[in-house]
Amino acid sequence: MKRRLLLVSNSTLHGGGYLEHCQQEIQEFFGKQVKRILFVPYALHDRDAYAKTARGKLQSLGYEVDSIHEASDPVEAVRKAQGIFIGGGNTFRLLKTLYDHNLVSEIQKRVLQDGVPYMGSSAGTNVSTVSINTTNDMPIVYPPTLAAIGLVPFNINPHYLDHNPQSKHMGETREQRIQQYHEEPDTPSVLGLREGSMLLVEGDKATLLGSTKARLFSRGKPPTEYEPGSDLSFLLAEGK
Amino acid sequence: MKRRLLLVSNSTLHGGGYLEHCQQEIQEFFGKQVKRILFVPYALHDRDAYAKTARGKLQSLGYEVDSIHEASDPVEAVRKAQGIFIGGGNTFRLLKTLYDHNLVSEIQKRVLQDGVPYMGSSAGTNVSTVSINTTNDMPIVYPPTLAAIGLVPFNINPHYLDHNPQSKHMGETREQRIQQYHEEPDTPSVLGLREGSMLLVEGDKATLLGSTKARLFSRGKPPTEYEPGSDLSFLLAEGK
Repeated sequence: MKRRLLLVSNSTLHGGGYLEHCQQEIQEFFGKQVKRILFVPYALHDRDAYAKTARGKLQSLGYEVDSIHEASDPVEAVRKAQGIFIGGGNTFRLLKTLYDHNLVSEIQKRVLQDGVPYMGSSAGTNVSTVSINTTNDMPIVYPPTLAAIGLVPFNINPHYLDHNPQSKHMGETREQRIQQYHEEPDTPSVLGLREGSMLLVEGDKATLLGSTKARLFSRGKPPTEYEPGSDLSFLLAEGK
Repeated sequence: MKRRLLLVSNSTLHGGGYLEHCQQEIQEFFGKQVKRILFVPYALHDRDAYAKTARGKLQSLGYEVDSIHEASDPVEAVRKAQGIFIGGGNTFRLLKTLYDHNLVSEIQKRVLQDGVPYMGSSAGTNVSTVSINTTNDMPIVYPPTLAAIGLVPFNINPHYLDHNPQSKHMGETREQRIQQYHEEPDTPSVLGLREGSMLLVEGDKATLLGSTKARLFSRGKPPTEYEPGSDLSFLLAEGK
């Protein structure tokens, strides 16, 4: 499988600029062969402003940016893309828009069959997985399904957050929410990517990158922690 | 309209016991005429344990409890109910189960036409509104629609949480999430009920109760704050 993915937890790390904390990984990921990146701004309402932000940053790293919302034919834009970057925002809005434009299967085909490199951050990471069942976002719109692009056979929880024992808030912790997901039958593993971490997938190899540990939840097992640099390739064999 | 609702933000307040912070309001709400309350535990996985908790608390306040998951015919249980209490947990799981058992329209009819008192807490408050578009919960299952029981013409965000300026977490604040909802067309007002607050609805009168302020979000307007005791009846006229 030619698959190449860079799945980032968050676009902006506290105190830093947009995509600043992962800019080196982005350059290594897209390399010098990719000249133009197709940006997908559907997760935010103001697509022009979002494309401007992404374009500014990626140009500074040496890449031209085409925003899919400016294309007359979005499916054709995916067919021609050298590289794809789906940005964060609201995951429900993003997935619904991808389905509205018939892009889910097209992106899947381009990435899995043609080896087009795919980068996602936050919501863009969520939609790359089995489903958006483990998004943190508010369901502001109703997508036709929660099934997503399925570039990996497990789910991710971006912006993974440890419980703050000082908090007096009584809403469920992130861990409790993911455990509720695993109370449902046949649910895949969930990789909790803390802010600052990202997953690099190359074919059948997956590596944790970034500055923070990740927490893995698998149905019926206690959660486990992984340090940056860990080989998480076993996750790609899930469900096989 | 005979409608009587007690919509509680949260079942447990920090440092207190289950339903302790609202026990006086519960007794005033159900009064002495209601002898038995129909409890709906669908939002949590372990329904037996949940029914036991609810039964223990409500019995101490003078009410017998029938849990709908123990009824051979849940629709018939709603038809015979003197009072209904839907507890918190995962809102997606709750709404899906209500639809699976054909209970949404039956509960609506009993409450709006027959005047059966309805109490909800957290997820049980969410499902009483127009839709669950403003839940905080993880979409662990896929309900057939986000439209809910519709006992009031607006939405509620339970466990409403103010932004902590000390936080280094970069996920959207609650206010930003609700504002993203209002970027979508034709979206109703959202009442942010902080933990400790609740809304009492009697016919066309709505009153904020409890110990904390509520924050109201209406599309295209700046948010506004309401003190406990505020008359929020204008929200019931929304969409008319």
